[in-house]
Amino acid sequence: MHAISFIQDLAVIMLVAGVVTILFHRFKQPVVLGYIVAGFIIGPHTPPFGLIHDEDTIKTLAELGVIFLMFCLGLEFSLRKLFKVGATAFIAAFLEIVLMIWIGFEIGRWFGWNTMDSLFLGAILAISSTTIIVKALNDLKMKNERFAQLIFGVLIVEDILGIGIIALLSGIAVSGAVSSGEVFSTVGKLSLFMIVALVIGILLVPRVLAYVARFESNEMLLITVLGLCFGFCLLVVKLEYSMVLGAFLIGAIMAESRQLLKIEQLIEPVRDLFSAIFFVAIGLMIDLSVLIEYIWPIVVITVAVVLGKMLSCGMGAFIAGNDGRTSLRVGMGLSQIGEFSFIIAALGMTLQVTSDFLYPVAVAVSAITTLLTPYLIRAADPLSLKLASVVPKRLSRVLSLYGEWLRSIQPQGEGAMMAAMIRRILLQVGVNLALVVAIFFSGGYFAARIGEYLSEWLPDLAQQKALIWGAALLLSLPFLIAAYRKLKALSMLLAEMGVKPEMAGRHTQRVRRVIAEVIPLLSLLVIFLLLSALSASILPTSELLLLIAVVAAGVVALLWRWFIRVHTRMQIALLETLDNQKEHHP
Amino acid sequence: MHAISFIQDLAVIMLVAGVVTILFHRFKQPVVLGYIVAGFIIGPHTPPFGLIHDEDTIKTLAELGVIFLMFCLGLEFSLRKLFKVGATAFIAAFLEIVLMIWIGFEIGRWFGWNTMDSLFLGAILAISSTTIIVKALNDLKMKNERFAQLIFGVLIVEDILGIGIIALLSGIAVSGAVSSGEVFSTVGKLSLFMIVALVIGILLVPRVLAYVARFESNEMLLITVLGLCFGFCLLVVKLEYSMVLGAFLIGAIMAESRQLLKIEQLIEPVRDLFSAIFFVAIGLMIDLSVLIEYIWPIVVITVAVVLGKMLSCGMGAFIAGNDGRTSLRVGMGLSQIGEFSFIIAALGMTLQVTSDFLYPVAVAVSAITTLLTPYLIRAADPLSLKLASVVPKRLSRVLSLYGEWLRSIQPQGEGAMMAAMIRRILLQVGVNLALVVAIFFSGGYFAARIGEYLSEWLPDLAQQKALIWGAALLLSLPFLIAAYRKLKALSMLLAEMGVKPEMAGRHTQRVRRVIAEVIPLLSLLVIFLLLSALSASILPTSELLLLIAVVAAGVVALLWRWFIRVHTRMQIALLETLDNQKEHHP
Repeated sequence: MHAISFIQDLAVIMLVAGVVTILFHRFKQPVVLGYIVAGFIIGPHTPPFGLIHDEDTIKTLAELGVIFLMFCLGLEFSLRKLFKVGATAFIAAFLEIVLMIWIGFEIGRWFGWNTMDSLFLGAILAISSTTIIVKALNDLKMKNERFAQLIFGVLIVEDILGIGIIALLSGIAVSGAVSSGEVFSTVGKLSLFMIVALVIGILLVPRVLAYVARFESNEMLLITVLGLCFGFCLLVVKLEYSMVLGAFLIGAIMAESRQLLKIEQLIEPVRDLFSAIFFVAIGLMIDLSVLIEYIWPIVVITVAVVLGKMLSCGMGAFIAGNDGRTSLRVGMGLSQIGEFSFIIAALGMTLQVTSDFLYPVAVAVSAITTLLTPYLIRAADPLSLKLASVVPKRLSRVLSLYGEWLRSIQPQGEGAMMAAMIRRILLQVGVNLALVVAIFFSGGYFAARIGEYLSEWLPDLAQQKALIWGAALLLSLPFLIAAYRKLKALSMLLAEMGVKPEMAGRHTQRVRRVIAEVIPLLSLLVIFLLLSALSASILPTSELLLLIAVVAAGVVALLWRWFIRVHTRMQIALLETLDNQKEHHP
Repeated sequence: MHAISFIQDLAVIMLVAGVVTILFHRFKQPVVLGYIVAGFIIGPHTPPFGLIHDEDTIKTLAELGVIFLMFCLGLEFSLRKLFKVGATAFIAAFLEIVLMIWIGFEIGRWFGWNTMDSLFLGAILAISSTTIIVKALNDLKMKNERFAQLIFGVLIVEDILGIGIIALLSGIAVSGAVSSGEVFSTVGKLSLFMIVALVIGILLVPRVLAYVARFESNEMLLITVLGLCFGFCLLVVKLEYSMVLGAFLIGAIMAESRQLLKIEQLIEPVRDLFSAIFFVAIGLMIDLSVLIEYIWPIVVITVAVVLGKMLSCGMGAFIAGNDGRTSLRVGMGLSQIGEFSFIIAALGMTLQVTSDFLYPVAVAVSAITTLLTPYLIRAADPLSLKLASVVPKRLSRVLSLYGEWLRSIQPQGEGAMMAAMIRRILLQVGVNLALVVAIFFSGGYFAARIGEYLSEWLPDLAQQKALIWGAALLLSLPFLIAAYRKLKALSMLLAEMGVKPEMAGRHTQRVRRVIAEVIPLLSLLVIFLLLSALSASILPTSELLLLIAVVAAGVVALLWRWFIRVHTRMQIALLETLDNQKEHHP
């Protein structure tokens, strides 16, 4: 009977995992490593024999493990946190990822691996492990120190960039080549999709969850959460993105709901169950003979991970204005790879573009660097003291001057407020334009299908296109108007700041007004040109376009106030949801 | 890719289940029905088309759902509760099960179904649905009324008897025939296994859980619980019992641990996930054409379930001394079938002894009776009033006299205490003897394997047998001695009660002493004869038996006190665990 061999597998996995993790816990090692070792013990490559019969089903459940891991990562991620993390996190994460991908790629080439293997190795080394770091800082009781907060910020940015890397790698693996144009288009589409998904998701999902939560049934809430999670993953897969991205995004969307704590409480046992299977399944794949064969790459890569991350993250933290000690602690805390690396390695295997040895090598490096993490964190302080005594006085003076200089050039008072306001306006314009672009994109994407429906009573293709394009424009109007108004506010602000009376004399007011009118109109023109280019497939003929423009102008003139009201209501709903969330988590 | 079609299935299941259950909840119908309807909607028999691609994996997960359902039923079951439920529960449950099996069997024969189908139909109708009743009483806010407490008692007894039915049916289905000898042997072995598993389990499992709980990691506790659960299920399957039995037993064992509340909290989301899949999988199998074809059986069986259970449970409650109104309410509350019926129907399908139509018929009857349950409970009170006005005065006088008579013959004061004491002693003797029998059974079971190991330095088969039998006896000694001492205490008690001075005159003391000595010795003799019969396969020759007896006598004489101490310590550990449990649940 199929079911019994499956239950047997689960029994073996859970029993061995249970015993090994208890042993690991006793010796103060991360539980995750225990799972991997348990998988190794019961794996097919380890004597006496493979204890798992139905590896396919286990692997399917392991995929569920990845989904739940990323979903929970999304739940713990939050837009508000992302807005709060400072420059340090962005700079350190960006530097780390670029540097580590480059180092990984070069190491791969040096060992004579092919391009794809080297590229995936780079990506595998790029992202540190949230699970391991949180666990280690918890154990060391350092979670509330400043450097720990910086590390959490870096991890949040890493998550987003990691999602981007996965999307990019999928694209590159399919096309087989890296072209900068493709990278831009992939990143652009991905950002667009993420913005649209987040905006629509945050408008809809928390409302659905709040409705279901009213029934006060844990079961119904759980089923709804799972339905939304899997449903969204499916949608994302249909759009040819990775399931991982979907799980993370829907997690991030649900993180904005009021039911977050309850959802986490319900989903955690499910995640623990499936992620245990995921990590055990990783262990199943470890073949000791492969590890021995690739012992040198493993050693080299491990050293590269520790030193590379120490340097890149430490440098990033320092460049962003932290003192040497804190920077070193940030760098040494992030010196390991974990779950993201497994997911990227698994991606390469599923897409069949990487060699078989890459996965076990990644697991081995992750295991070693994970074991090192607590020691590295503890060693950071003594090391920084020793470094301080070794570094020449003059250099250390220069370094501390850099920090002072950085603080001196940061906008203060009114300037800082202005900068924050400009950032805010630009963000709003960006989000509105993303929605507009998404509407036109979908119009182009579904044009053929919509055309079929239309062809019965509108056989002319040109007229169909005009209708679709016009409808897209109509739908976009609230967002376009909002973007226009924000841009106008921005240009007034800029005109005020840029055109000083001492330069323009008595023309000051007039120059300012001209600038404030011209900039938004110019921007809108650029936006329309861009839209026309992006929606080329459904762009109507110029006569029809003119007609549409006239109609649109009429609609805008008539419904200007109504459009503004609709948009304001949506914006308020969105901001309310974002503000409603409760603080939680470390 | 396999995983994606699987995720798609899960997405469809969860989304449709979510929407349908919310609708059902709004219309105040049980969530379980919503799942079944959701499964029906997405099922392969329903237009437009089947939405599930990977039905095998879904069915495997549905089996997990059964395990988790039964495990949670076990967690809510507790030995202490079983000891507390009164005669009402036992009588009502026993009457219900016997009557319903008979009614079901007769209905099946009447429709011309074959013996196996009829027998399974009887079993399907036997057990009411805990889930549905708890839900209905909760909704009606009647959970704390007297009749509700009686119903919960009946449900607890039903669970145990249901487990027995499943074991019996598996045996019958394999052998293809019902013989009373086989029934006795199956029930005997099952009871033996359950007692031994409970004693050993309650001695070991709560200690393991307490140890793991010290680490204060939900994840580790969950993995340990799952490991023990699946591991025990596997053991039970290897002993050729149903997995369902294993899940229930290990649940009942864990119910005695101090971590019960935490375990329930962790396991509930997992159960909700998998049981949703289980109920949806049931819906997947519903074929409307089958239902239409079997409309008459469905109607007849539904009426039989409602009337049969009303009568049998009501009568049982009345016989045990409840008034007419309460009895009717108990009977009408239990008038439905549910999860146990699905499990029994699934058993028949897996063993391939029942026809295809039985499952959908069971599901249809369950759905209808489930829908009726709240109305029946509410109708019980008005109905009892109406009945009271219709029943002739004389009959109602006789009926109420019965209750008074029953109360008058119940032992009171000292008598009741005596009866309780005797029950307690008999229970202890029973448990000890069960352990002894189990030791000899395992000896016989593993004799061939142990013999292989022994044959190197003890080639003689007779000597091997003697060694194994002797070892079994040695292991049994603490329990035999304990049983002997309890029996002695019991016979002293009986002698005291039975031999009154007015009968035996001045010989009273002597007669009492003789009785107190003879009864336990006689019982031990009977026990030894029974053991010899049960362990016939490893019974040594009579000379060797004599030798063993002499050695055993020597050991007993030497280590009498030590054996008593060992046994007492075990007993204390067991009772401590049983007493430590906290009250919870309705």
